Amino acid sequence: MNMDSGKILLLLLCLNVAILGVIGNPPTCPADVDTQCSASSEWKGEFFPNIPKVKYEGPSSKNPLAFKWYNADEEILGKKMKDWFRFSVAFWHTFRGTGGDPFGAPTKNWPWEDGTNSLDMAKRRMRANFEFINKLGVDRWCFHDRDIAPDGKTLEETNANLDEVVALAKELQGTKIRPLWGTAQLFMHPRYMHGGATSPELGVYAYAAAQVKKAIEVTHYLGGENYVFWGGREGYQSLLNTDMGRELDHMARFLEGAAAYKKKIGFNGTLLIEPKPQEPTKHQYDWDAATTSNFLRKYNLLGEFKLNIECNHATLSGHSCHHELETARLNGLLGNIDANTGDPQTGWDTDQFLTDIGEATMIMLSVVRNGGLAPGGFNFDAKLRRESTDVEDLFIAHISSMDTLARGLRNVAKLIEDGSLAELVRKRYESFDTEIGAQIEAGKADFEFLEKKAFEWGEPKVPSAKQELAEMIFQSAL
Amino acid sequence: MNMDSGKILLLLLCLNVAILGVIGNPPTCPADVDTQCSASSEWKGEFFPNIPKVKYEGPSSKNPLAFKWYNADEEILGKKMKDWFRFSVAFWHTFRGTGGDPFGAPTKNWPWEDGTNSLDMAKRRMRANFEFINKLGVDRWCFHDRDIAPDGKTLEETNANLDEVVALAKELQGTKIRPLWGTAQLFMHPRYMHGGATSPELGVYAYAAAQVKKAIEVTHYLGGENYVFWGGREGYQSLLNTDMGRELDHMARFLEGAAAYKKKIGFNGTLLIEPKPQEPTKHQYDWDAATTSNFLRKYNLLGEFKLNIECNHATLSGHSCHHELETARLNGLLGNIDANTGDPQTGWDTDQFLTDIGEATMIMLSVVRNGGLAPGGFNFDAKLRRESTDVEDLFIAHISSMDTLARGLRNVAKLIEDGSLAELVRKRYESFDTEIGAQIEAGKADFEFLEKKAFEWGEPKVPSAKQELAEMIFQSAL
Amino acid sequence: MNMDSGKILLLLLCLNVAILGVIGNPPTCPADVDTQCSASSEWKGEFFPNIPKVKYEGPSSKNPLAFKWYNADEEILGKKMKDWFRFSVAFWHTFRGTGGDPFGAPTKNWPWEDGTNSLDMAKRRMRANFEFINKLGVDRWCFHDRDIAPDGKTLEETNANLDEVVALAKELQGTKIRPLWGTAQLFMHPRYMHGGATSPELGVYAYAAAQVKKAIEVTHYLGGENYVFWGGREGYQSLLNTDMGRELDHMARFLEGAAAYKKKIGFNGTLLIEPKPQEPTKHQYDWDAATTSNFLRKYNLLGEFKLNIECNHATLSGHSCHHELETARLNGLLGNIDANTGDPQTGWDTDQFLTDIGEATMIMLSVVRNGGLAPGGFNFDAKLRRESTDVEDLFIAHISSMDTLARGLRNVAKLIEDGSLAELVRKRYESFDTEIGAQIEAGKADFEFLEKKAFEWGEPKVPSAKQELAEMIFQSAL
Amino acid sequence: MNMDSGKILLLLLCLNVAILGVIGNPPTCPADVDTQCSASSEWKGEFFPNIPKVKYEGPSSKNPLAFKWYNADEEILGKKMKDWFRFSVAFWHTFRGTGGDPFGAPTKNWPWEDGTNSLDMAKRRMRANFEFINKLGVDRWCFHDRDIAPDGKTLEETNANLDEVVALAKELQGTKIRPLWGTAQLFMHPRYMHGGATSPELGVYAYAAAQVKKAIEVTHYLGGENYVFWGGREGYQSLLNTDMGRELDHMARFLEGAAAYKKKIGFNGTLLIEPKPQEPTKHQYDWDAATTSNFLRKYNLLGEFKLNIECNHATLSGHSCHHELETARLNGLLGNIDANTGDPQTGWDTDQFLTDIGEATMIMLSVVRNGGLAPGGFNFDAKLRRESTDVEDLFIAHISSMDTLARGLRNVAKLIEDGSLAELVRKRYESFDTEIGAQIEAGKADFEFLEKKAFEWGEPKVPSAKQELAEMIFQSAL
Repeated sequence: MNMDSGKILLLLLCLNVAILGVIGNPPTCPADVDTQCSASSEWKGEFFPNIPKVKYEGPSSKNPLAFKWYNADEEILGKKMKDWFRFSVAFWHTFRGTGGDPFGAPTKNWPWEDGTNSLDMAKRRMRANFEFINKLGVDRWCFHDRDIAPDGKTLEETNANLDEVVALAKELQGTKIRPLWGTAQLFMHPRYMHGGATSPELGVYAYAAAQVKKAIEVTHYLGGENYVFWGGREGYQSLLNTDMGRELDHMARFLEGAAAYKKKIGFNGTLLIEPKPQEPTKHQYDWDAATTSNFLRKYNLLGEFKLNIECNHATLSGHSCHHELETARLNGLLGNIDANTGDPQTGWDTDQFLTDIGEATMIMLSVVRNGGLAPGGFNFDAKLRRESTDVEDLFIAHISSMDTLARGLRNVAKLIEDGSLAELVRKRYESFDTEIGAQIEAGKADFEFLEKKAFEWGEPKVPSAKQELAEMIFQSAL
Repeated sequence: MNMDSGKILLLLLCLNVAILGVIGNPPTCPADVDTQCSASSEWKGEFFPNIPKVKYEGPSSKNPLAFKWYNADEEILGKKMKDWFRFSVAFWHTFRGTGGDPFGAPTKNWPWEDGTNSLDMAKRRMRANFEFINKLGVDRWCFHDRDIAPDGKTLEETNANLDEVVALAKELQGTKIRPLWGTAQLFMHPRYMHGGATSPELGVYAYAAAQVKKAIEVTHYLGGENYVFWGGREGYQSLLNTDMGRELDHMARFLEGAAAYKKKIGFNGTLLIEPKPQEPTKHQYDWDAATTSNFLRKYNLLGEFKLNIECNHATLSGHSCHHELETARLNGLLGNIDANTGDPQTGWDTDQFLTDIGEATMIMLSVVRNGGLAPGGFNFDAKLRRESTDVEDLFIAHISSMDTLARGLRNVAKLIEDGSLAELVRKRYESFDTEIGAQIEAGKADFEFLEKKAFEWGEPKVPSAKQELAEMIFQSAL
Repeated sequence: MNMDSGKILLLLLCLNVAILGVIGNPPTCPADVDTQCSASSEWKGEFFPNIPKVKYEGPSSKNPLAFKWYNADEEILGKKMKDWFRFSVAFWHTFRGTGGDPFGAPTKNWPWEDGTNSLDMAKRRMRANFEFINKLGVDRWCFHDRDIAPDGKTLEETNANLDEVVALAKELQGTKIRPLWGTAQLFMHPRYMHGGATSPELGVYAYAAAQVKKAIEVTHYLGGENYVFWGGREGYQSLLNTDMGRELDHMARFLEGAAAYKKKIGFNGTLLIEPKPQEPTKHQYDWDAATTSNFLRKYNLLGEFKLNIECNHATLSGHSCHHELETARLNGLLGNIDANTGDPQTGWDTDQFLTDIGEATMIMLSVVRNGGLAPGGFNFDAKLRRESTDVEDLFIAHISSMDTLARGLRNVAKLIEDGSLAELVRKRYESFDTEIGAQIEAGKADFEFLEKKAFEWGEPKVPSAKQELAEMIFQSAL
Repeated sequence: MNMDSGKILLLLLCLNVAILGVIGNPPTCPADVDTQCSASSEWKGEFFPNIPKVKYEGPSSKNPLAFKWYNADEEILGKKMKDWFRFSVAFWHTFRGTGGDPFGAPTKNWPWEDGTNSLDMAKRRMRANFEFINKLGVDRWCFHDRDIAPDGKTLEETNANLDEVVALAKELQGTKIRPLWGTAQLFMHPRYMHGGATSPELGVYAYAAAQVKKAIEVTHYLGGENYVFWGGREGYQSLLNTDMGRELDHMARFLEGAAAYKKKIGFNGTLLIEPKPQEPTKHQYDWDAATTSNFLRKYNLLGEFKLNIECNHATLSGHSCHHELETARLNGLLGNIDANTGDPQTGWDTDQFLTDIGEATMIMLSVVRNGGLAPGGFNFDAKLRRESTDVEDLFIAHISSMDTLARGLRNVAKLIEDGSLAELVRKRYESFDTEIGAQIEAGKADFEFLEKKAFEWGEPKVPSAKQELAEMIFQSAL
């Protein structure tokens, strides 16, 4: 082996992340190979040397790296802010997001990346994750199995890789940090191109089951509080070549299997399904909260699962985020929130960090009504824009969104203290707070009785809905 | 009273349709008063004197008033075409559609209208309806209660008006024609502005119950085969002033009441709910098939109701019509089809007559798979464009759409005879037609077993989905 | 004539609004005839007896009938608030909005309406308009010709009606109040069902020209500062029966004619085109700002017209309101704003009052950049929700939206004072603030020169776009 | 060097495609490394050994690898089918499409790929391209510069790579095959993340100019008939950090430069701009045909450019494909068609092969009206579904879409022969085929004249638009 081939070998070592990376994850692909590979494989320094621990400095602060509204230990509506939110960092977007999109190569050039998806690199990334979490001051993180550890040549090897990284994560978690949830990535690898649980290929179904089994195990091992199913490829591209009925039956069997296994190993975390209407498939079976609720009811899975509502998925399905939260809540299924936002003018999942105060206030109205989300919380399923390539952007984005949600909570407290919005709603329905109202609500007023009353009462009076007043009151609290 | 005041009186008599019409229905408002009112109140002639009974002339005919593909008594796939379709004329669009829209006054000037919404006018319209039905050669019609008879000053008077018109309709039906379904109009009158079953006003709830009770009675009296609920105002404009949970509970109680009353009077028709995502309200509770199915399951109403799927409502909810049909079918809920289409580029309900052959073929694939729709059928919930103002346009539109659906059925027959599309689908799933597949489908393959198999089998093989081939085969049949 | 027929006559007089109303405007149709008609035709009282003149009370006020943020004479960024906004009340929505929609009858029951569309009623409504304007404390109003005066039997009679009402309006305007703009309603009457300027009927084209001629005249007479064209039916429903090229040519000829006539009579107001993508037609020729700009350029009309940007129209065309404002501004065409908002989840024009603070801030960024809008201003092309039926709702809605825009302006002042957002943008482009940058911008750097530089410079450095930081700075100002 | 390191080296050689591939193009990434790399670098066999040259077999053929409707040399409407269509294969989708999407790794496993993006591999792919083109029986192809040849370490090296591959392409083209168009890929590489011509970085602007210069040169060298600009990143993600005015000015300067350079080197091909509303950026400057036309007019570039209309881009911008074609045509800008289709229910570019016969007929109506597209044609900017992984799927997809368009052309011929649709349209506008109509169209009828006529004529008659009849006639031809 001469010098040249050695050089090539090193170069290739540095490049080989891409192929494995692509299969396991979108590649953290270097735009500029020489720069990218500068991180030596023994790199052990601080990951964010120029970022101090983020502190609360209050609304007048101009420091982009400080909280202006989120004050973790401050009590609002009888609970500490941190307990209302239970914020979580998504390993996926934060540490495996590359800036790649269907029309563009990766753009991120994080200094700790060496251009590989080796076990060593996976561990280094995990250290970066915990430094980030600690500096940001949150206690939870979320992960996909294939984010955190590389694929091996066989499932056995892949599992071994996962075990090794998970052991380090457990050590780094310390006593305070825990996964809000774990999940299995059943959409990136080509084997899942037709779905996991709903693949027409039996071998894929079995493989997916094995992968979920392992992902539940490691989530349990790490003390995770929930486990999530996002059915990215559980859907169809065309009904012409799809047996939708059979696929839905398979999905139900699969989820039954997961629920049974969870119990068997004594994992008490909540199983959560994350609805999304479409993308990557043209139609996904967990379209929205109501669709998923229907599925759970049809297959008698209602007691076993709750929902993880993502705001951007809500708007893609034609609903407001608040609508989806309320639909989940009213079906007894509100388990967790993937806090992000989309662009109202685009038709795909942009997974942006939420910075709209009105939206945050609507979200917090539901959360407060729900008495909080525990054991769920708020996971930042949000990513930097492709063009945001500074390390500090990762912090700025999280801080900005945590502050936004904190403003939402503070606004809800103001609305509750003021009381006039709740009173407006109460008054709208007060005709049902009567004896006949109670009869109707108890199912004791049949159509003959009601017809008699209608004849007796004549034309009903119908007052204004006062929507503009409600909007004025709402906005006054912002 | 001098001549002038007499003239004014007549003029006003001719005008007063508008106000009553608006409350009960969109007004059949004359653009040109003098023309419009030309129809004397004793008008008894033929309504469509220039339109002969529509006949089947085959594909080579250029006659706009003949069927080219729909041949009622021809047998296709073991059933007469008329039995596959069970076509129905919507009284609403055909005889009360005015061409008015949010930005424009009525445009239709049907010669039989005298500018009133009197009982006499209602009866004359009913005669026109049956002449139309007979000339078109269909056996079914659909109606809203307030379409066919005018509001009175009280509910009692309104009911009496309805009875009078319904008695005439029964006579005109003869032995062959029946309502495919009847329904109550709970959205036009201002009393229903906050909803009927979900109005915050108890008096409105009672009034709505009385109205539905009567509408079920007259549907039963006329020999109707189904009864439909379209919850046009059962939804919300803003969550800020809405108690969604309480409203949904009320809706469930209301539907329970309807189901109980139906049984009490011995009406055996199917109760159908018609999903629509939005419009007029920002969000309607019967958003789509899955949402409505969830509602029925949640409130234990599953055995009592089926769905009436409307294609334009399907696309407004982000689904293909075919998807909604299949979702209804797989939930055991496919009861009826409102055959129309929307414009893929507009965001509101355009209720156009379906003329897309591919779409019609997809629809018929589901219908054939369902073994037909009886006791449901195809109702033309479609209206002439506002600018289509010739009487013959009413015929042309219906003929064109009946022919389109007939082409769809003929194409399905070709696809079934050819067999290659079904075979393509069968092959995709054949790995589940095995012993282990059967175990999985029976819920007898737990995750430990599946993991063992996954280790044993290694990387699964995943073949092409052959979507382009499926599309080629499908298109070849058109 | 006996008592009964007299009673009927009165009833009918009270009802006949509907038919005329429908043609000229959506009817102000009484839900409950007896109540509705209570207003005697000599009714001369105060219209809003319980509403005092609206005052500024500051952000801590809880009074729904007071301004919290809009303080007309307060100076912000070198101009009084009232001069930044030049607010205008839309006669159309405020006094002719009925609450009717495609699925529902009118719901409004304003006490001054007598159920007619008589000249007397038109004048009474005009008095209500000016009491409203005065109590709200604004100086401008906007109108469609057919809103303010009833159609007659002939165009001559219609013009005479208009003159009579306009004379009263001029008197009521006093010295301070003026129309922000007037316009002709070319979409409600059935004669315009295929368009006005783009109707295939030559007679309609001529009629439309005559109507616009008159509308420009009365706008001029009233001291109007602008004149608007909204091409509600200038578009198509189907390309199958449309000669789009010929229609566009006609539209250009029509606008040429209007511009020529304006000059001839010495009217110096700005002619404004209001883009909207669709609804009522499937496609409208003035789709968005860029499309309209292209039309003006193609037909050499650029100097004669500016644009009236409506926020809800912007979002329906797939753009943010801010985008449309900037597009108009960059084409030198930003003339006026129709201040409203839509629902991001609905596909039709909801014309809601804007209450989103972030959106208002974005809008004001463009307005400040444009140095204000004069002689244009902000017209509230917004309507109460159908279910908002209290007279006070009219005030609450306007106050809420004026306050929202005032918050927007105050936020822009904060952003400008802070300076960091502008600095972030300036820095992004600073590589062009160089000698070579200037050469490029002057069109003096050809491809050969640039290629030489590219070879010389090697791989360019591309910094972060800092979008999350920009969003953080923006939100901090809210 | 021991065996193991040799093996690793080979493995890595086979993997290194990914990183280079990702930058230059989405990687043709092997799902299964061992299979993927089976292609030896000296591989010289036939690429599609099991696919014979595709022949026309007529409508009754069931052979998926035969044409049923496209008969290249058959004359329709006075021209050979091949001359109406001038079909082109897109190198991009056909040979560099990997099946990767934002949620998934590549799925294609073409046997000729060796897992690298080496020059050798690039040449082998080029041979595959020409075998494909020849077997399909078309005469044109389209390419992006970075599709066909790998990036080097410097622009000089990249250009050299390109030259080498282009020389081979020229040889393989022979005497018959030519590029329909070439283009530069200014969106994949991270340097272009903020745009090329509209990047805030001057260095990127220069680099883009150099790249376009070279791409025009090679297109010219290969005998290309057109050159395309698709501004994938020429747009913005957020207006908060964007100076839209300055970016648009830069874009104009850039296009001026390209037009000047084209003339300088004697390239006579048409320069085409391809509108797309959004994706990858939230807003792209070439939003749709009208927007792009406005841009060209504003910057005096009208004579230099035409448009390349893509059907899926049309529908994403809220228009039908037919609308965009007509808009381009009426602005004198219809230059080329990217023949594909989208899913009406999804909000992103799916680039599917068009198989809808009605849509194809609408497209051909415009093309025939335009007298054909030459020197433009139909480029299949369409890709296999991610799940379509058989080599034959590439052929099936192209054949299916060519047949669809051929059916469209045959249908147009039927419509023209029948004549009734054209007659329906002619009659609608015949009131303008008069003396006064001519005056209006010549701009000689001022508003005073028209008012006089309106008074004289009274209420105009407005006939039915006959849309349903038009739809019936249209459908009869399918």
